[in-house]
Amino acid sequence: VKNTFKKIGILGGGQLGKMLCIAAAPWHLDIAILENDADCAAAPYATRHIMGDFRNFDDVLQFGRTVEILTIEIEAVNVAALRQLEAEGIIVHPRPDVLAIIQDKSLQKQFYQKHYLPTADFQCFTDKKSLQSAFYSDQIRLPFVWKSAQGGYDGKGVQVLKTAVQIGHLPDVACVIEQKIVIAKELAVMVARRPSGEIAVYDVVEMQFDDRANLLDIQVCPADISPDLAAAAKALAIQTIEAFDVCGLLAIEMFLTTSGELLINEVAPRPHNSAHHTIEAAETSQFEQLLRAVQDLPLGSIRTRLPSVMFNVLGTIGYTGEAHLVGLEHIMACEGAHLHLYGKKITKPYRKMGHLTLTAPLAHLALERALILKKEVRVMSYEL
Amino acid sequence: VKNTFKKIGILGGGQLGKMLCIAAAPWHLDIAILENDADCAAAPYATRHIMGDFRNFDDVLQFGRTVEILTIEIEAVNVAALRQLEAEGIIVHPRPDVLAIIQDKSLQKQFYQKHYLPTADFQCFTDKKSLQSAFYSDQIRLPFVWKSAQGGYDGKGVQVLKTAVQIGHLPDVACVIEQKIVIAKELAVMVARRPSGEIAVYDVVEMQFDDRANLLDIQVCPADISPDLAAAAKALAIQTIEAFDVCGLLAIEMFLTTSGELLINEVAPRPHNSAHHTIEAAETSQFEQLLRAVQDLPLGSIRTRLPSVMFNVLGTIGYTGEAHLVGLEHIMACEGAHLHLYGKKITKPYRKMGHLTLTAPLAHLALERALILKKEVRVMSYEL
Repeated sequence: VKNTFKKIGILGGGQLGKMLCIAAAPWHLDIAILENDADCAAAPYATRHIMGDFRNFDDVLQFGRTVEILTIEIEAVNVAALRQLEAEGIIVHPRPDVLAIIQDKSLQKQFYQKHYLPTADFQCFTDKKSLQSAFYSDQIRLPFVWKSAQGGYDGKGVQVLKTAVQIGHLPDVACVIEQKIVIAKELAVMVARRPSGEIAVYDVVEMQFDDRANLLDIQVCPADISPDLAAAAKALAIQTIEAFDVCGLLAIEMFLTTSGELLINEVAPRPHNSAHHTIEAAETSQFEQLLRAVQDLPLGSIRTRLPSVMFNVLGTIGYTGEAHLVGLEHIMACEGAHLHLYGKKITKPYRKMGHLTLTAPLAHLALERALILKKEVRVMSYEL
Repeated sequence: VKNTFKKIGILGGGQLGKMLCIAAAPWHLDIAILENDADCAAAPYATRHIMGDFRNFDDVLQFGRTVEILTIEIEAVNVAALRQLEAEGIIVHPRPDVLAIIQDKSLQKQFYQKHYLPTADFQCFTDKKSLQSAFYSDQIRLPFVWKSAQGGYDGKGVQVLKTAVQIGHLPDVACVIEQKIVIAKELAVMVARRPSGEIAVYDVVEMQFDDRANLLDIQVCPADISPDLAAAAKALAIQTIEAFDVCGLLAIEMFLTTSGELLINEVAPRPHNSAHHTIEAAETSQFEQLLRAVQDLPLGSIRTRLPSVMFNVLGTIGYTGEAHLVGLEHIMACEGAHLHLYGKKITKPYRKMGHLTLTAPLAHLALERALILKKEVRVMSYEL
């Protein structure tokens, strides 16, 4: 069926790209991915897989010219090429200017400040030397959070510094320093927006992090917070997506401080790990929602079907090599457990191999089942 | 991730094969299809698409040898090849012997009789002549339902006969004659069974047919019947799948007579149009359930999430040519509407181009919305 659906291109072909392709399949959408890895997660499910580097100007330009709408599953893409494509009439979501801001943590923090969006106090430094001189002149105090301005992803490029010696070991790059705040909870809100202005906000989720690997550990939806606080978090999410003037998705990670304040930690203008539960636990998944938003189609219902708990299936510590899943029978036998694997052939400690979403009529049931499964599910290799 | 999942092959690559591939995608399953049409619905979503004829002995044999488990999305496959593959150690579900019975309506009816499964009274004839002589010797009376023993699909090969002249126009093939019964409702039950014996039965659905095209018109889940009757229909479904000793899926279409009797109309040992709603309206879709069952993995929860109404998106009368969907905005704006398109490029009157499932907190809401959408959604072509 030829229809009013548009040809969509995605920069990146990882698990987020894969789940976008699956969401596009019921509509038989034409969906192309640009990704250098022939074995990437999205490859088997995209209509077309173009080998190329989404960081490369020419690759992105050439790819973008073959589609009607271009979007991303990773921020680290070539923004100059996106600007060029936009000038040529290709629809690009999110806006290249916003990507440029979000790619740089200094610009991102300054954006919040400029738009009166609450965020932890910060200082920006262009190199290590200026950071050190600020430290030795007492303008910043330990402990503090150091964030590389560029290229942070999944906890890489973020360090909590407690001693002066650690400062000496930092790489010489532009960075943002935040005073360490006391966090009561980490929350996330996924919000969608289409060019016509319609906005849809999913229920607030609560995240707990595993300090060892600094990767999302377990995520609960809805968050165990008061209705007023949930409403405030959603309102902040709407304010943020409107300030960025982004169409598509915006995942907003927030801190709830012990004094009850909501502070924006960071945002991602794309599908996000913190909203994977929407595949089963919401009426419309974040992936389908993005496909609707970028085509300026009416957004789908964000209604939560059931409470849910999601955790990433990570490579088990001590195993590196050809991946092998242990615990499949347990997963399949568990009421409301939904397994997602990303098709990665090689496991290593803490590598994101997939995720598991547990839905249940009551949140505590989902949590209990998740914690049991989390112990039973392992990604190992035959070699150590 | 290499895991305990098996390599699965599907005979047929139509919309049912497509939806099986989509269900397999979150697990990153290796799923191959055998289908002669390069543009078939499943092609973009299968790990491998082998061009070949599922009716041909050699094609099926060669294809089957490349997988660990073989299943079907259409009954009209080469049974001899499946028997051979089974002898070679390939796991085949449903059993080839059952396929041979179900492919032949005479054998199917005799099977019900032999196993005390309730079905409308019938007589079998090997050719037209024997049917005519039975009619002229008053052994059968008008009106009656004539069914071709072989090759019926979607209403083709079924006729309601009212006059002797019509008998003269019948094709000269083996057939089954049923006395016309007075139907209160048409029901369907989908049941899944795995080799270990575990069975899962979905809620009973109610179907209404469109007499013009003899294709499923609208389907409501759960059926508007008493709990006792629903329990009886489910029990009959379990009795039937156990009698056939089938693993995988069995869709059982039933008549509820005006006297309150349940009669089996026909069965399909595969995913079925009457259970498409399970994608959104049940915790586990019929497609994922089949993938679990054939691998002898624990079956998923059949819990109904919400009441639903499903209808097929058919080619609009009067249009033949390159298909064009009208009403996309309406669908997307409708709460709980889920569109599925099968990727067929050419439309013709009544061709199954896709389906739409409406979920809602109350069945009557889903029905109201479905009836509105049914009027607004059209598959047309620019040419007439």
